[in-house]
Amino acid sequence: MLTLYVAPGTCALASLIALEEAGAPYRAVKLDFAAGEQRGEAYRRVNPKGRVPALATERGILTETPAILAYVAQAFPAAGLAPLDDPFAFAELQAFNSYLCSTVHVNHAHRPRGSRWADEETSLADMKRKVPETMTASMRLVEDDYLKGPWVLGERYSVADGYLFTLGNWLEGDGVEVGRLPRILDHRARMAARPAVQRARAAEQGKG
Amino acid sequence: MLTLYVAPGTCALASLIALEEAGAPYRAVKLDFAAGEQRGEAYRRVNPKGRVPALATERGILTETPAILAYVAQAFPAAGLAPLDDPFAFAELQAFNSYLCSTVHVNHAHRPRGSRWADEETSLADMKRKVPETMTASMRLVEDDYLKGPWVLGERYSVADGYLFTLGNWLEGDGVEVGRLPRILDHRARMAARPAVQRARAAEQGKG
Repeated sequence: MLTLYVAPGTCALASLIALEEAGAPYRAVKLDFAAGEQRGEAYRRVNPKGRVPALATERGILTETPAILAYVAQAFPAAGLAPLDDPFAFAELQAFNSYLCSTVHVNHAHRPRGSRWADEETSLADMKRKVPETMTASMRLVEDDYLKGPWVLGERYSVADGYLFTLGNWLEGDGVEVGRLPRILDHRARMAARPAVQRARAAEQGKG
Repeated sequence: MLTLYVAPGTCALASLIALEEAGAPYRAVKLDFAAGEQRGEAYRRVNPKGRVPALATERGILTETPAILAYVAQAFPAAGLAPLDDPFAFAELQAFNSYLCSTVHVNHAHRPRGSRWADEETSLADMKRKVPETMTASMRLVEDDYLKGPWVLGERYSVADGYLFTLGNWLEGDGVEVGRLPRILDHRARMAARPAVQRARAAEQGKG
């Protein structure tokens, strides 16, 4: 039995979607971010980074969304969630997920979490003002160059689709004009209709 | 024949080290960052992100260091650069590389590249002031929790070692008191002595 540590509205949703699509046996443990539970002693023993997601397996704890997504795909190969037998295609999947993690998510984080990188209120306000521009630019690259369609990798659905869906849900809040990203919007609508995605969203709220 | 697009002093060194350790046939193409070559039309056709590294293969272009490192390990399995037959150990490797990419490298980038996320000079100065703190904190986590020793994954050398070495070379410039990170310093010294690392450093400077 796997245990995934999550919080609503975070990138942990991508890992929940992967577990649901895989049909994996798991339970979701919801942390209370408002109470700072992710920085508490108990959770620090699970994940010293103080963040979600973290996946507890019988071998130990895994963190970082791209790593968890690849793990779920490899641990449940029958679900076909990654091109495991093709190093180039697998690397394309990894490159997509890595870009979401290190560029798109980081751009977004400068709105709610600018204090990770600067101290002055004026700096945090400056960062917030720039988020619509940076999120639009990075998602524009996804729209134009990396989302092959209908799914991220083309005809083949993969763990990357749940990750794009997860970060795509932040666009309106980040001030992005989503009407100018029609392929991402279409992808989002098709993702929202998948039963596994609906189950993952319920699990994210502690209703799993 | 693989082609790796690089620039001196960037994270592209990690991919050069992986290619050298793998004994892969490749050539390195050095971009002139001072002239803005990475943002020019010709390179945009290689990598629309306008960054290095990018690896041109016979199947197409790969970007993002964690993806390139995993690809090199999978494409040259005889070199033993990743635990390819163990999904959990492979995920640990991916988690380490993802953390370097999305947290450590991002912390560093707020010194030379703060204008990615804010516009005002005062904000950029504020970001620069905070880099010693954020780089120390993220490398402290590597030192205490993730570098198993003697190599990142323990007894087994992997592509993660070249990535840690690459980012570890930035510590002094980022204002980190490296004497307080003795395990990372020891790792760095052992890495610097490896012939493949020395060849990669020469290739980075266009002397390969």
